[in-house]
Amino acid sequence: MTENRWNHLTAPQLRELARRDAVVLLPVGSTEQHGAHLPTGVDDFLAAEVSRRAAAAAAPLPVVVAPAVPYGLAEHHMPFGGTLTLSLPTLHALLRDLTRSILRAGFSRILIVNGHGGNATALHALVNDLTAELGSPIALTSYFTAGRKVIAETLTTQAQLMHACEGETSMALAAFPELVRTDLIEGAVGPSISLQAEDASPVYRSVTFDQIAPAGVAGDARTASAEKGERLLEGCARALADLLVAGIWP
Amino acid sequence: MTENRWNHLTAPQLRELARRDAVVLLPVGSTEQHGAHLPTGVDDFLAAEVSRRAAAAAAPLPVVVAPAVPYGLAEHHMPFGGTLTLSLPTLHALLRDLTRSILRAGFSRILIVNGHGGNATALHALVNDLTAELGSPIALTSYFTAGRKVIAETLTTQAQLMHACEGETSMALAAFPELVRTDLIEGAVGPSISLQAEDASPVYRSVTFDQIAPAGVAGDARTASAEKGERLLEGCARALADLLVAGIWP
Amino acid sequence: MTENRWNHLTAPQLRELARRDAVVLLPVGSTEQHGAHLPTGVDDFLAAEVSRRAAAAAAPLPVVVAPAVPYGLAEHHMPFGGTLTLSLPTLHALLRDLTRSILRAGFSRILIVNGHGGNATALHALVNDLTAELGSPIALTSYFTAGRKVIAETLTTQAQLMHACEGETSMALAAFPELVRTDLIEGAVGPSISLQAEDASPVYRSVTFDQIAPAGVAGDARTASAEKGERLLEGCARALADLLVAGIWP
Amino acid sequence: MTENRWNHLTAPQLRELARRDAVVLLPVGSTEQHGAHLPTGVDDFLAAEVSRRAAAAAAPLPVVVAPAVPYGLAEHHMPFGGTLTLSLPTLHALLRDLTRSILRAGFSRILIVNGHGGNATALHALVNDLTAELGSPIALTSYFTAGRKVIAETLTTQAQLMHACEGETSMALAAFPELVRTDLIEGAVGPSISLQAEDASPVYRSVTFDQIAPAGVAGDARTASAEKGERLLEGCARALADLLVAGIWP
Amino acid sequence: MTENRWNHLTAPQLRELARRDAVVLLPVGSTEQHGAHLPTGVDDFLAAEVSRRAAAAAAPLPVVVAPAVPYGLAEHHMPFGGTLTLSLPTLHALLRDLTRSILRAGFSRILIVNGHGGNATALHALVNDLTAELGSPIALTSYFTAGRKVIAETLTTQAQLMHACEGETSMALAAFPELVRTDLIEGAVGPSISLQAEDASPVYRSVTFDQIAPAGVAGDARTASAEKGERLLEGCARALADLLVAGIWP
Amino acid sequence: MTENRWNHLTAPQLRELARRDAVVLLPVGSTEQHGAHLPTGVDDFLAAEVSRRAAAAAAPLPVVVAPAVPYGLAEHHMPFGGTLTLSLPTLHALLRDLTRSILRAGFSRILIVNGHGGNATALHALVNDLTAELGSPIALTSYFTAGRKVIAETLTTQAQLMHACEGETSMALAAFPELVRTDLIEGAVGPSISLQAEDASPVYRSVTFDQIAPAGVAGDARTASAEKGERLLEGCARALADLLVAGIWP
Repeated sequence: MTENRWNHLTAPQLRELARRDAVVLLPVGSTEQHGAHLPTGVDDFLAAEVSRRAAAAAAPLPVVVAPAVPYGLAEHHMPFGGTLTLSLPTLHALLRDLTRSILRAGFSRILIVNGHGGNATALHALVNDLTAELGSPIALTSYFTAGRKVIAETLTTQAQLMHACEGETSMALAAFPELVRTDLIEGAVGPSISLQAEDASPVYRSVTFDQIAPAGVAGDARTASAEKGERLLEGCARALADLLVAGIWP
Repeated sequence: MTENRWNHLTAPQLRELARRDAVVLLPVGSTEQHGAHLPTGVDDFLAAEVSRRAAAAAAPLPVVVAPAVPYGLAEHHMPFGGTLTLSLPTLHALLRDLTRSILRAGFSRILIVNGHGGNATALHALVNDLTAELGSPIALTSYFTAGRKVIAETLTTQAQLMHACEGETSMALAAFPELVRTDLIEGAVGPSISLQAEDASPVYRSVTFDQIAPAGVAGDARTASAEKGERLLEGCARALADLLVAGIWP
Repeated sequence: MTENRWNHLTAPQLRELARRDAVVLLPVGSTEQHGAHLPTGVDDFLAAEVSRRAAAAAAPLPVVVAPAVPYGLAEHHMPFGGTLTLSLPTLHALLRDLTRSILRAGFSRILIVNGHGGNATALHALVNDLTAELGSPIALTSYFTAGRKVIAETLTTQAQLMHACEGETSMALAAFPELVRTDLIEGAVGPSISLQAEDASPVYRSVTFDQIAPAGVAGDARTASAEKGERLLEGCARALADLLVAGIWP
Repeated sequence: MTENRWNHLTAPQLRELARRDAVVLLPVGSTEQHGAHLPTGVDDFLAAEVSRRAAAAAAPLPVVVAPAVPYGLAEHHMPFGGTLTLSLPTLHALLRDLTRSILRAGFSRILIVNGHGGNATALHALVNDLTAELGSPIALTSYFTAGRKVIAETLTTQAQLMHACEGETSMALAAFPELVRTDLIEGAVGPSISLQAEDASPVYRSVTFDQIAPAGVAGDARTASAEKGERLLEGCARALADLLVAGIWP
Repeated sequence: MTENRWNHLTAPQLRELARRDAVVLLPVGSTEQHGAHLPTGVDDFLAAEVSRRAAAAAAPLPVVVAPAVPYGLAEHHMPFGGTLTLSLPTLHALLRDLTRSILRAGFSRILIVNGHGGNATALHALVNDLTAELGSPIALTSYFTAGRKVIAETLTTQAQLMHACEGETSMALAAFPELVRTDLIEGAVGPSISLQAEDASPVYRSVTFDQIAPAGVAGDARTASAEKGERLLEGCARALADLLVAGIWP
Repeated sequence: MTENRWNHLTAPQLRELARRDAVVLLPVGSTEQHGAHLPTGVDDFLAAEVSRRAAAAAAPLPVVVAPAVPYGLAEHHMPFGGTLTLSLPTLHALLRDLTRSILRAGFSRILIVNGHGGNATALHALVNDLTAELGSPIALTSYFTAGRKVIAETLTTQAQLMHACEGETSMALAAFPELVRTDLIEGAVGPSISLQAEDASPVYRSVTFDQIAPAGVAGDARTASAEKGERLLEGCARALADLLVAGIWP
């Protein structure tokens, strides 16, 4: 597997990739509480992991993975401790500078790969402003949206990703098992929370996560397994690669 | 029907409403192209209309309707002309000042009532920052999300609101028929566009509306009628009133 | 009378107006306390009303009236309740986005029509920055400055507009009598406050309005009448139309 | 005459003045073209000069003069060269930091003394925001507004200050004659421009000064004299001192 | 060696560390060209590597390493491609949000560990504003300043770190040899550039790095070795640990 | 000696200097406590004084001195009173507007001449952003860096400038002796503080100056003399002039 991480490549290698008009994946994660059994970096790690696998799977299409943004919008997890959060204007400024830099480095096709549900609406809104500001169409997906089919097929207690749930725990067991506190998975159970609009209440109110999920978990991690995780990671990456190969930009 | 519009009331009347801890609805619309048959103020007018009806329907719960924000995020409609758009930071600043003013006027329960699909994700993201900045939970809905059931039941060519479509045209015919160019409805047909996540492409890219709907219309306005419109307006208002009466804030 | 309200017109109609290089009037009002007898929307309503009449009176010169900005600088009225206020940077951002949108919609001649004394100096200052930022000369007037002659001739207890006074109450009685609490006009009396530089103290200090006018009124509303109001509205509109016809831009 | 310049005093002396609740005058000038006969620093120099004289004249009331802000809003003079201009947001930020510093240094009574007509409306607007932001009432005057009576009585070709005119040239001849190119005064004639609202056009449009005054002069400098200048400086200072002694703050 | 990486720890573990008032190291790197032989992530990787080693070496003092900021100020490297750069306001906003989050998570002692010479002066300036804004003293070091003694003793062709030089190449060979293009080290030679004030020109002017070092290298990488690199990493980490143990905060 | 102060010159004279591509020196000082014996304006006065002397010494090279920025970053001196401080964003905005104005006035070569140690790192960082924002290379020096050789040779108790020290007091005695409280010099002694990186602690933490120097003095002012001061001023100016003549810009 060819190296596809921007920060593992040299500048001449990146210039060559720009010359070939490679796609740039920009993972955006979060550093936030994920229950007692998962490390706080889960969203960051998984967005980067899926992006790297997708970049490899899209070969021979040239794809490079920019250094993941490790921070996102996590105000609702602040009461748990261990959480870093950005304001919306800061995330805007950061993404503006990064996408502008990528364009100045000679690339023209940028896809933000989100890894945190709490970022989704903000990134959707920001992509519009970034596109207007930069005059270049910045695209956006969340790896769990790209892979929603494999997620629905693989998981047994949930149809889509929740938080520190069967899905995220499975992927953590597949990608970085040494960071999972398996002895604490037994207690990693919480309410089922849907990210999909049609199931949600028509009224949105900012609530802190501890009010709805005291253990910091939404879903049921007890049925997680590394096998499911590997299937999810590969499936999401494959789905993302298919989108890239099919073509996103005009 | 008691007057419930903030700008139609006097300051002493508003002080009394604040003393009673009235709910404040803050409609947010848009001024943007709506095909050749609808006026550019549709989203603004409908958000305000539903809000006023909902406020009346919620009686005896005290509800007041703040002056609607006539502008939203409409960059994607700019190529058509006739469109006003705000940047995300400007919308943020405007809503911050308005919600802060409402809180300073003695109210504590604010519900933003969105009337424009293009505002939805941005408002979702902004509500989180506003809640943190103001230390008071600002709630959010879109009138067409609150009323999604009546919309699905009433319309024949679509299951949810699109743009200058059967739904919006019907409501316009009910609420401000003198502003509808009925002679041009015959040509008001365009592609079907879903606002719901599960139908949408997993990749989002900012595209101008003319690229997907040259006539500025998504959906089919030819089956619109004032009767359907009245049913939609009342149904959305009723649904919104029910939410208010059931209670949104802790 | 031809429709001249931007939000009542369709996008194709606005494109045609832009093609004819129509003047765009952008009313800027305020939502703020106006004593116990007038609604809080007075400044917003009157700026829009005079603008619409002026647009009609200027025919055949093509003129369109953009959706009025309902909010202004009203910090000094906050102690009364019922008041919404913007900070200066927010008003700047809002006007920048609106005027830029109007220019992008193909128009080149924009006149801000102010309706609130408290906005006057700020708008004067902002117009300079907007002109430099946009590279297009944004013009400014206040309807009560354009119509200062008819105001002086019509009113009996004051020579210029004050606040919730003989003048504003008269115009409210002419334009939206159903919103005037005529039973409370008897108490609508307050100190006389001049907006003109030569009469004012040479030192300006930001004071809240309740410190100088406990009833929220400056002037004497008891002599107000709908007849005077109609004369004021027509006179101000006529004066504004004359300015437009005489030509404002190079 | 006791030293009253902030930057000529030591920190212990300023602490003592703060303990006595001394008034702080904050002159705000401009660095901009003033015709061929006057230096670009005129507005800065005169605001500071009048402030220092006023501080002395107000004795025994303790008054200290902060370092003058040498820059203002002078976009309209940019075509002449030799001109420095700030944007409104920059002036806002600068005054916010300076007034906050003065408050933190223990003072509570701040009067901005403006020396440039082009700053007047902006400062008026900014003082409102500064007062709200700092929670302390910042006061404002222009030295030529404070001294409007002596100006009207002293000058023969104009009733109020214009630009590089009889008044400014006279004060320059009194305060810094070595910087006046007296050989060029003969050509220092331009149109008469009023700063007073009642004479001005009811429509304001940002025009560059060269369009109305090709020589960079408004008024007639040929009748200027050092004697008049001294009378103006003393009169303005005396008027300002009287205001201070009479009391500005509650 | 105990895990000390924030994003590898769970929220409960981080809460416990906060309870013990652990020091938080916040590495700030850069993603920028480093010649043809080193990956663009060098500064990011080394700041994080030294921080992790220092945290371990400081035991039993509790120390946790926050997720490294992968981006810095690298405008001067933009002409080479492969480089991401932030503006100063964006870096300010990002560090403000991160340090505020760390404080809100219960920690009180934050040390920014810089890994990029181009960030040094900006971070020095920002730390002052952050301290004032947050009311908590944020400390700052660069790992190569903390370890300047071991650097001077270890390197043979330079007395301090330069760019893609003997020092950085040696550390790269020790910490991530698989990412070093050893076949290209032969050409990795450039001018000697001092970071120390006393050697530098007294005039600073922003120049792009390609103007002074066409190969993107300052110093001589040919004498680099993994042994030197290991000595540098351990030495810098030891020096940093000693500073932590000696105590930085009051 | 020809006049070289921007604000003492007329616009036509400045246009002529711009035509000759004169260098513009922009002094940046500070208004801050300087012990009990020196006025708070020292840094401002000395930056301007050295700049003016350097401009004269560089003849026939055309050099003009812009009005000095009297304010800088002095948060660390705030506890002493008598101090004005700007935030970093405000200093950024101010310098952006001033340098942009100077470029618009026709000049292309700008050298910021810093006079306050506390500004040094911030100005270094800002110059990078200003250069990128304006597309024109803004240069930077501190007068005491340009003149470090003469400073080291002249002073007896210190090798470089400190604060209210032998050096600054000597220059004050030479340039504005009437503002020096010579009766208080006896107590003007404080710790020795180095500005040079190699002597400083490798960890920087924002501390208020009163914590390290209760008298507000770093160094020993008792050995100051006007003779030393004159030698320093001339030496620094000469060194700065030599740099200008040798050429700074490409």
